[in-house]
Amino acid sequence: MSYIPAELIKKKRNGGVHTADEIRTLIRLYSKDELPDYQMAAWLMAVFFSGMTGEETTVLTEAMLHSGLTLDFSHLPTPAVDKHSTGGVGDKTSMIIAPIAAAAGVPVPMIAGRGLGHTGGTLDKLEAIPGFNIRFSLEEFRTNVEKYGVCIIGQTDEICPADKKIYALRDVTATVDSLPLICASIMSKKIAEGISGLVLDVKYGSGAFMKTIGRAETLANHLIEIGHGHGKKVIAVLSNMDQPLGRFIGNALEIGECIAILKNQSFLNEEPGRFHDTRELSIALAGDMIWLGGKADSREHGAEVAEEVLASGAAWRKFEQICHVQGGRLSELPSAAKKEIVLAPQNGFVQSLETEQIGLAAIKLGAGRLKTADLIDPTAGIHMHKKIGEAVHRGEALYTLFARDEKHFAEARTMLLAATTISLQKVASPRLIALRK
Amino acid sequence: MSYIPAELIKKKRNGGVHTADEIRTLIRLYSKDELPDYQMAAWLMAVFFSGMTGEETTVLTEAMLHSGLTLDFSHLPTPAVDKHSTGGVGDKTSMIIAPIAAAAGVPVPMIAGRGLGHTGGTLDKLEAIPGFNIRFSLEEFRTNVEKYGVCIIGQTDEICPADKKIYALRDVTATVDSLPLICASIMSKKIAEGISGLVLDVKYGSGAFMKTIGRAETLANHLIEIGHGHGKKVIAVLSNMDQPLGRFIGNALEIGECIAILKNQSFLNEEPGRFHDTRELSIALAGDMIWLGGKADSREHGAEVAEEVLASGAAWRKFEQICHVQGGRLSELPSAAKKEIVLAPQNGFVQSLETEQIGLAAIKLGAGRLKTADLIDPTAGIHMHKKIGEAVHRGEALYTLFARDEKHFAEARTMLLAATTISLQKVASPRLIALRK
Repeated sequence: MSYIPAELIKKKRNGGVHTADEIRTLIRLYSKDELPDYQMAAWLMAVFFSGMTGEETTVLTEAMLHSGLTLDFSHLPTPAVDKHSTGGVGDKTSMIIAPIAAAAGVPVPMIAGRGLGHTGGTLDKLEAIPGFNIRFSLEEFRTNVEKYGVCIIGQTDEICPADKKIYALRDVTATVDSLPLICASIMSKKIAEGISGLVLDVKYGSGAFMKTIGRAETLANHLIEIGHGHGKKVIAVLSNMDQPLGRFIGNALEIGECIAILKNQSFLNEEPGRFHDTRELSIALAGDMIWLGGKADSREHGAEVAEEVLASGAAWRKFEQICHVQGGRLSELPSAAKKEIVLAPQNGFVQSLETEQIGLAAIKLGAGRLKTADLIDPTAGIHMHKKIGEAVHRGEALYTLFARDEKHFAEARTMLLAATTISLQKVASPRLIALRK
Repeated sequence: MSYIPAELIKKKRNGGVHTADEIRTLIRLYSKDELPDYQMAAWLMAVFFSGMTGEETTVLTEAMLHSGLTLDFSHLPTPAVDKHSTGGVGDKTSMIIAPIAAAAGVPVPMIAGRGLGHTGGTLDKLEAIPGFNIRFSLEEFRTNVEKYGVCIIGQTDEICPADKKIYALRDVTATVDSLPLICASIMSKKIAEGISGLVLDVKYGSGAFMKTIGRAETLANHLIEIGHGHGKKVIAVLSNMDQPLGRFIGNALEIGECIAILKNQSFLNEEPGRFHDTRELSIALAGDMIWLGGKADSREHGAEVAEEVLASGAAWRKFEQICHVQGGRLSELPSAAKKEIVLAPQNGFVQSLETEQIGLAAIKLGAGRLKTADLIDPTAGIHMHKKIGEAVHRGEALYTLFARDEKHFAEARTMLLAATTISLQKVASPRLIALRK
């Protein structure tokens, strides 16, 4: 059917609900460059204000999904499962859960992303491992998943090209933070992986895009609804991001923390027990994946299996295999040429952390990009000696900064001290997992 | 100062108030093709939803005004004055009030528009007069105003080019009907004419863009505020558009009605008294122009002067002069090759008219454009034999259709009959002028 684009924009602007055919037409025309950027931009802004129903969002997801190639792993004996995190600071669980789930026999076809805003990205972390290749063809990706049970790559031009084009436009037209657009973008890419199940790690708190648990739950509900609309099993963990996850932020540093957890060993003088939050969340997420993959009878049982796989060393061996298959030389993991310790300015307990600012300080040091053209320093990052509720003494190490040079140390130090509230009263550490859906 | 365009879009999207510098930057960059259409489109949609303060709208008006050349008639002994109508069906007052005001000694530099949607435009009407030239350079326009006291032309590329570019974008991105954008577009073009005073004819009712008097008054208030912000005297008449103005709709037909009023003679068997609403509104608007031009002591006195100038034949002689100067051959005004009478289907009184539908029926006959590429038939149009409150007898002429061929007569007849409600109870004619501001 033929539509007048301005009339479709007007319909959404006036709060109307699109038919499936209208949404498919918009996405098809835009993909084929037959709808100009300015009309898509106006429509996106209208969606920002008028919203979309669950059904509209499901259709949008489907239209973006079918703009490119899709994979299918349904021929495998075990359902393929992936995890998606809405993004956090120090959020490094993918490197732990992918090998755990794969080692437990659940195929993990993971198409991961780059860092966004103040948060890190799985691809940037993996690329801190010299030689690690995240650019495989979809055919190679499929073969690796079938052969080794897991492969982690970046988005290719073949997967959801409409999403790629729309995302670039949203980025420059202030239409990124629209719930239906976020949901369709996430889910189209995940569904294109050919998975049967998806575990969502929906973050909330000072370091997350969703600052409150309420907004995080709304997002989780929408994502689950879309997944169900596409016949996928989708479950969610709502996890706290009022402080960075684990002790390290920055690409090579986070790989170091992951290896320490996978091998149950210390890293940069931190004993493995000091990474308990990263470990706990990884076990929960991997357990959920194992359950969705049918390798456990319940979420609790899934977590037990994940714990066994991790404790046995099987997850570590799987991670070594991933690195081997994808060309990563773990023994050459780089470390920073320069470091500087930021001392605690007073006695007390860490009361609260402005986690988004801590993420931005890491990016300032070189751990991420603020613009697409920015170069990443894989060795740059932050060691968090103290987390919420922990006692600090004046003059004791609060943070260690790492980078290839010292030029942003002063600024990062200022940002970190401003982001850290120390008080005399001890507070409890925030509860890591608030809710499971 | 340098801004990130996406941040400016986000600011408006989030309901923020722009600084003057931000608005000027957006308009300057867009005029110079340094801001892409898609960012302007997103910003326009954000303005649609978030609105603009009076101050922001005044700055936007000023930025569009200064994107091109502006005229200045302040050296003339009498303040130059123009009228702007928000658009209606059968709204032909410009052809009457421009000569009245000019004949009364008030300079009228009138840059007029084309038909828009279901409404007609002054330029299309004037061009029904063979040879009438509405394309003068600004220099010729200025000279004519100084020499003859009046000139009527179309918008040139030199006047408010930013508005022209933005209007074209609004048209295809469903961002036309935004109050601040409408106001800035109208006022930038009018202020560019170099006038000291402006009379607004703000229409409300079934044939106007503003369906209710409340919305019309809001629009009037905004336009007046912007005008005052630019040091202009601006007054408004809120006039009813629940039925077409006068008896004729269509370009040559409306010129015929204007000539009949200017010469106090009949036209197509209609006695001059049957055009009393067109005449009454014209006297009111011309009177207001005469008052703003300082040729009367009050609005009432202005109307008296207008009445005298019209009755004396001076306005008609001025209209003849306008046509002569602008090349229009009044004696060659064309008439339609085909006509058809639409009969009243029942006895009763005209109860109500769907005036927008009547305007669309006229356009269907060829009196206007639905798309820019459509050609106008200057002879096409509608004769309204019966208006609200008038008695009709079954089989009596309700409308006469005119066009160069009969191909759309059936459709127009159906539209007109559907737009006309006849009932046994007599209703009063709507009050023509509801409010003056």
